[in-house]
Amino acid sequence: MAKDKLRIGMVGYGFMGRTHSNAFTQAPKFFDLAREPELVAVAARNKDRAEEFAANWGYGSVESDWRALIDRDDIDLIDIAAPNNVHHDIAIAAAEAGKMVMCEKPLGRTAAESSEMVAAVESAGVPNMVWYNYRRIPAVTHAKHLIDAGKLGRIFHYRAQFLQDWTIAEDLPQGGEALWRLDVDVAGSGVTGDLLAHCIDTAMWLNGGIDTVTAMTETFIKERPHNLTGKVEPVGIDDASAFMARFGNGSLGLFEATRYARGHKALYTFEINGEHASLAWDLHDLTRLSMFDHRDDGPERGWRSIHVTDGEHPYMGNWWVPGLHIGYAESFVHQAADFINGLDGVEAAPTFADAHRTDLVTDAVLKSGKTGQWEGAS
Amino acid sequence: MAKDKLRIGMVGYGFMGRTHSNAFTQAPKFFDLAREPELVAVAARNKDRAEEFAANWGYGSVESDWRALIDRDDIDLIDIAAPNNVHHDIAIAAAEAGKMVMCEKPLGRTAAESSEMVAAVESAGVPNMVWYNYRRIPAVTHAKHLIDAGKLGRIFHYRAQFLQDWTIAEDLPQGGEALWRLDVDVAGSGVTGDLLAHCIDTAMWLNGGIDTVTAMTETFIKERPHNLTGKVEPVGIDDASAFMARFGNGSLGLFEATRYARGHKALYTFEINGEHASLAWDLHDLTRLSMFDHRDDGPERGWRSIHVTDGEHPYMGNWWVPGLHIGYAESFVHQAADFINGLDGVEAAPTFADAHRTDLVTDAVLKSGKTGQWEGAS
Amino acid sequence: MAKDKLRIGMVGYGFMGRTHSNAFTQAPKFFDLAREPELVAVAARNKDRAEEFAANWGYGSVESDWRALIDRDDIDLIDIAAPNNVHHDIAIAAAEAGKMVMCEKPLGRTAAESSEMVAAVESAGVPNMVWYNYRRIPAVTHAKHLIDAGKLGRIFHYRAQFLQDWTIAEDLPQGGEALWRLDVDVAGSGVTGDLLAHCIDTAMWLNGGIDTVTAMTETFIKERPHNLTGKVEPVGIDDASAFMARFGNGSLGLFEATRYARGHKALYTFEINGEHASLAWDLHDLTRLSMFDHRDDGPERGWRSIHVTDGEHPYMGNWWVPGLHIGYAESFVHQAADFINGLDGVEAAPTFADAHRTDLVTDAVLKSGKTGQWEGAS
Amino acid sequence: MAKDKLRIGMVGYGFMGRTHSNAFTQAPKFFDLAREPELVAVAARNKDRAEEFAANWGYGSVESDWRALIDRDDIDLIDIAAPNNVHHDIAIAAAEAGKMVMCEKPLGRTAAESSEMVAAVESAGVPNMVWYNYRRIPAVTHAKHLIDAGKLGRIFHYRAQFLQDWTIAEDLPQGGEALWRLDVDVAGSGVTGDLLAHCIDTAMWLNGGIDTVTAMTETFIKERPHNLTGKVEPVGIDDASAFMARFGNGSLGLFEATRYARGHKALYTFEINGEHASLAWDLHDLTRLSMFDHRDDGPERGWRSIHVTDGEHPYMGNWWVPGLHIGYAESFVHQAADFINGLDGVEAAPTFADAHRTDLVTDAVLKSGKTGQWEGAS
Repeated sequence: MAKDKLRIGMVGYGFMGRTHSNAFTQAPKFFDLAREPELVAVAARNKDRAEEFAANWGYGSVESDWRALIDRDDIDLIDIAAPNNVHHDIAIAAAEAGKMVMCEKPLGRTAAESSEMVAAVESAGVPNMVWYNYRRIPAVTHAKHLIDAGKLGRIFHYRAQFLQDWTIAEDLPQGGEALWRLDVDVAGSGVTGDLLAHCIDTAMWLNGGIDTVTAMTETFIKERPHNLTGKVEPVGIDDASAFMARFGNGSLGLFEATRYARGHKALYTFEINGEHASLAWDLHDLTRLSMFDHRDDGPERGWRSIHVTDGEHPYMGNWWVPGLHIGYAESFVHQAADFINGLDGVEAAPTFADAHRTDLVTDAVLKSGKTGQWEGAS
Repeated sequence: MAKDKLRIGMVGYGFMGRTHSNAFTQAPKFFDLAREPELVAVAARNKDRAEEFAANWGYGSVESDWRALIDRDDIDLIDIAAPNNVHHDIAIAAAEAGKMVMCEKPLGRTAAESSEMVAAVESAGVPNMVWYNYRRIPAVTHAKHLIDAGKLGRIFHYRAQFLQDWTIAEDLPQGGEALWRLDVDVAGSGVTGDLLAHCIDTAMWLNGGIDTVTAMTETFIKERPHNLTGKVEPVGIDDASAFMARFGNGSLGLFEATRYARGHKALYTFEINGEHASLAWDLHDLTRLSMFDHRDDGPERGWRSIHVTDGEHPYMGNWWVPGLHIGYAESFVHQAADFINGLDGVEAAPTFADAHRTDLVTDAVLKSGKTGQWEGAS
Repeated sequence: MAKDKLRIGMVGYGFMGRTHSNAFTQAPKFFDLAREPELVAVAARNKDRAEEFAANWGYGSVESDWRALIDRDDIDLIDIAAPNNVHHDIAIAAAEAGKMVMCEKPLGRTAAESSEMVAAVESAGVPNMVWYNYRRIPAVTHAKHLIDAGKLGRIFHYRAQFLQDWTIAEDLPQGGEALWRLDVDVAGSGVTGDLLAHCIDTAMWLNGGIDTVTAMTETFIKERPHNLTGKVEPVGIDDASAFMARFGNGSLGLFEATRYARGHKALYTFEINGEHASLAWDLHDLTRLSMFDHRDDGPERGWRSIHVTDGEHPYMGNWWVPGLHIGYAESFVHQAADFINGLDGVEAAPTFADAHRTDLVTDAVLKSGKTGQWEGAS
Repeated sequence: MAKDKLRIGMVGYGFMGRTHSNAFTQAPKFFDLAREPELVAVAARNKDRAEEFAANWGYGSVESDWRALIDRDDIDLIDIAAPNNVHHDIAIAAAEAGKMVMCEKPLGRTAAESSEMVAAVESAGVPNMVWYNYRRIPAVTHAKHLIDAGKLGRIFHYRAQFLQDWTIAEDLPQGGEALWRLDVDVAGSGVTGDLLAHCIDTAMWLNGGIDTVTAMTETFIKERPHNLTGKVEPVGIDDASAFMARFGNGSLGLFEATRYARGHKALYTFEINGEHASLAWDLHDLTRLSMFDHRDDGPERGWRSIHVTDGEHPYMGNWWVPGLHIGYAESFVHQAADFINGLDGVEAAPTFADAHRTDLVTDAVLKSGKTGQWEGAS
């Protein structure tokens, strides 16, 4: 018996267009899905590039305007893999057209933007999700299960960092194909929205809401050539951003992101310390979850390096055999599978509403970076 | 302009049938291929399972006998992902029918078998390859490049191990669906052909031929229930196998494989020590290559953990961005891509002839395990 | 030719009395010292315990009042290994008596206290030092040398943490023999003065002065039994303390200390990120210095684990052979040796004046923890 | 009440003379000893060096002939820290004079030598011990306790290696002050007696006797200048030595030592795999014991890094506080303390008889290296 199709229209063909397309392609091969994803069309301004992309991934057609994509009757879901500055308009138009909407993170450039996006999907009653993919790295999902099972007890500390080093060169332009993340008008902010947003999404998923924050932001390279003007212009983004936080459960948070930490490419790490046990993880060793359990027999206590590759670990029974790794891309595959199977069951998270709460925190971080005060974050 | 097709007939739908099918599916999406792989048909005795497999991966049809697959005119390449005991007959028949042949490792259950397989493909002049996939983990390929560039100087030592723990339970049957690796008639041997063969393939690729070996083999669990007879029968495979070796270049080798090393799932590790530098790698941290370079300034010398995820590292420019991991499955994708692009250029390795040389070593290991003598291995 | 003696009077026989006594005992056996340390007398209120301590370490006599120790003519140096609340009075009295003074860290309970102590030693013109021992872990000293040699270039980030877990139990008393660190009157503060002070000392040594800070402090267990009153009393110390900082050189700092990080005993870590290179170290792997050098050839770049055990590494030529570890206690041995050899040459650091600057930062941290504002720290 | 003295006469002032002298100096400061060690005299041919050594460590006098040391009435214990070629004669003479005897490892250059040494101490009935110090690294002792408590169940595998890289330079002389380990007449053998002997001692202590071995030995640099002749002479030692073993308990052993493993200074590692649990340790991270316990709850299983620094861990209650490291030298302190406290209680191991059994294995390894056969080792 043939499954119902889930007909997808993709906006964007960049790095995220590839991860999303791969997710929809791989998901049905490894997971039992309630509906079968079909790559119907991709929209992008550069027609040649879009056609090349469509051919590669099997999209049936190409649109040069995302509005045309939304107008099509043969599409159920609009997936937004375009830069941050277009998330708002596309998502709202898609929702108003009754399409399901998936959106790359961060949801909006500001919480004001994402607030309107939440209103649109909720008003339209359409399924929606934001691609905070790291929740679905199996080791991270495993951490969630252990925390929800009460293994940690009262939580005292949460800390996370996302360290990169790719913008240290002074001659790197702001804006352009792969560099729009340096253009504040397009990106909304620098590492706060790009990297800290991931840390905050995971943190609130694992440890609950954040009440207040105080932040420190910095732009190390003050001027860079701009791709649009061709001139050296002031840089508007934050190159580094750190903040301290108080969670609703009374625990303390420490967060940091930067693109100036020489030697780190994508070192996203978190650690959570509870009364009974602690957990730690990092993206550069993504198949491992570290766990210290104080309830182990005293002289045999130690940080355990849990190799999250067994069939009994989250998602892993669908892949290979114990000991063999999956990578970064599979986290998107899991998210696509969960979204699809949540359509007829329990709605998969993070929804637009969840992601809006992350935007409230990043807004507070950016504000505190200017005021030097503690700011409310919810 | 449409590319020529490479029309594939797959034999087998198990673990390796999945990795190979995934490889042919993913390769064209991430690599620029000279021909476009097409999954034409899969052959397997269990028709229901085969049809389910075909539907999942997009094979157009199903055959219940591999001979029928070979007889078809619409297939260019026979890919053997079935248990070891059928490699010989299928490969020879395929070659004789003028098909290209790819075969899971080990090539034969014995060097005698693989010798005939080599003769068949060479006589037929058909492209051929054996799926020793670990060569194409980017960190392993990177090691090859560094060695070939002369960074290590004279080699003194090579050591490798492949440690697992999945057969410690005494009640595990020998033979049956996922357990044919315990049945000596099907597998040919135990860990020697299954695990040491990988270590030997990589070792000879990186460090040249092995002249002589002395080995120690052991079967810890002497009797197990057999799936065919339903009775407890003597176990014919080796549970553990270790050997010492002398390479042609004068260096010493130490190899070990076992399925009784509690705590290790698929811990394939190797280390090579040269006059100037050493390299080490392990499958449980597969994106890293460790390198010690004695030519670094004295007080700053240290083992480097090279995070093999940059665009300038082998294969990685085709995947995501620096810092983000690929996994086990991608090594098969690389091998499929290299095979296809080698059809019209430099033949990709390891060929049947290369894999036969590995079988000569595993034969010598098994022989020495019985004689207690040093045995010639080439 | 007999060397001049350096006649030592010790105050205190606790944990730090042991590390200091061991330092003076071991230093002449492993280092060529300008003067020979002699353990003359120890002062402590508990006479029995003091006599036992004196017998163990070879002190010639015992005093039950530190004033008596200072009054003696046969003592050149007063070493203060007693709790924080007596540092001020002893140091000033010793300086006024013309004695050299060494003092455990932190120098004062407040910067006001330490300011007076600095004035006393400077007015008296007596050699003085504070036992911030971690500077002289060879890997840390090696980091200093690499930074001073300009290997890192412009610095962007400095981060440090000191994580422990020994006060999570709610029934632990505040105050008493080994627990005075929980009594705010004795200790002055909690983790800020005890643990962050170490982090700040190293940070300013490696990366220069700190201009401003904003902090978050917390007392998780609000009441504990007090050893003096026998009653449950409010807890006055900070259980956890974190702060963000701006260094004089424009780099950003992130610091955290806690006694509620389950699984960590004494995890003091730091990392410094520069334009060209980064360094990282942790006390739980104290013989290693991690270094990433962007000037290495691209595909061979990686974090180096420098095993700081060679003769060419700081201090290590005086110990064993390459590869063999020294431990925590040897950092005090190095400090004792440097202090003694600095008497007739270059004064060894950190002096009282250096340690006072650390107290200015801890004061600012504690103040900011209350005000929620950025506070000046110098 | 004054304790009885244990009056020590030391032979040798080299690297091992220092570690032993430090052990006897430190032991009474950290351990409650039944007798008080007194450094009475040191014997060595080079009088100036011996006097310097004596002054440094507090030996009361110096002898230029070890026979004079043995003749003295004011000495209870002869401690042999001289090169291997004099162990035999000194130990036998000391025993015959009724002295206790401690001896550096290996006990003899051959099992024939050590057999006579065992006979001498047993005939004289004098306490005796061999300085296989690694047994008393706390993490190693902890491993012994866990194994003896039955935590591992049936043992399948034991593997150990001792990797160094200090003799790769071709111009290094054989023989002379610090280089006698390269002179076969003095040392007896190369890495077999120097490094493998440590591995074997630990292995048989943890896992019981070794029945048979087959070995591979190699001398990479065939000729080196000799310090005695001044000429380039053939090298008699083994530069590298590996062997496979069968233990009495049915488990398999794999051992390797070399001085040609670029990047490793003193990487002594062992791992033992049992039915229920595995343990691993290495000297370059000596405070850690790794443990995998299959009886942990499935999804939470992982290799534990036990930080062996707590008061409840072997020996550690006598040192500092949890988390703070001791180093290499402390293993000798523990051994001295155990020897002294064993004089009036349970005799401390390894005795000469224990160490002789190690020599039987190293003899078998060297023999097998020549014959290429499996050889009996007990």
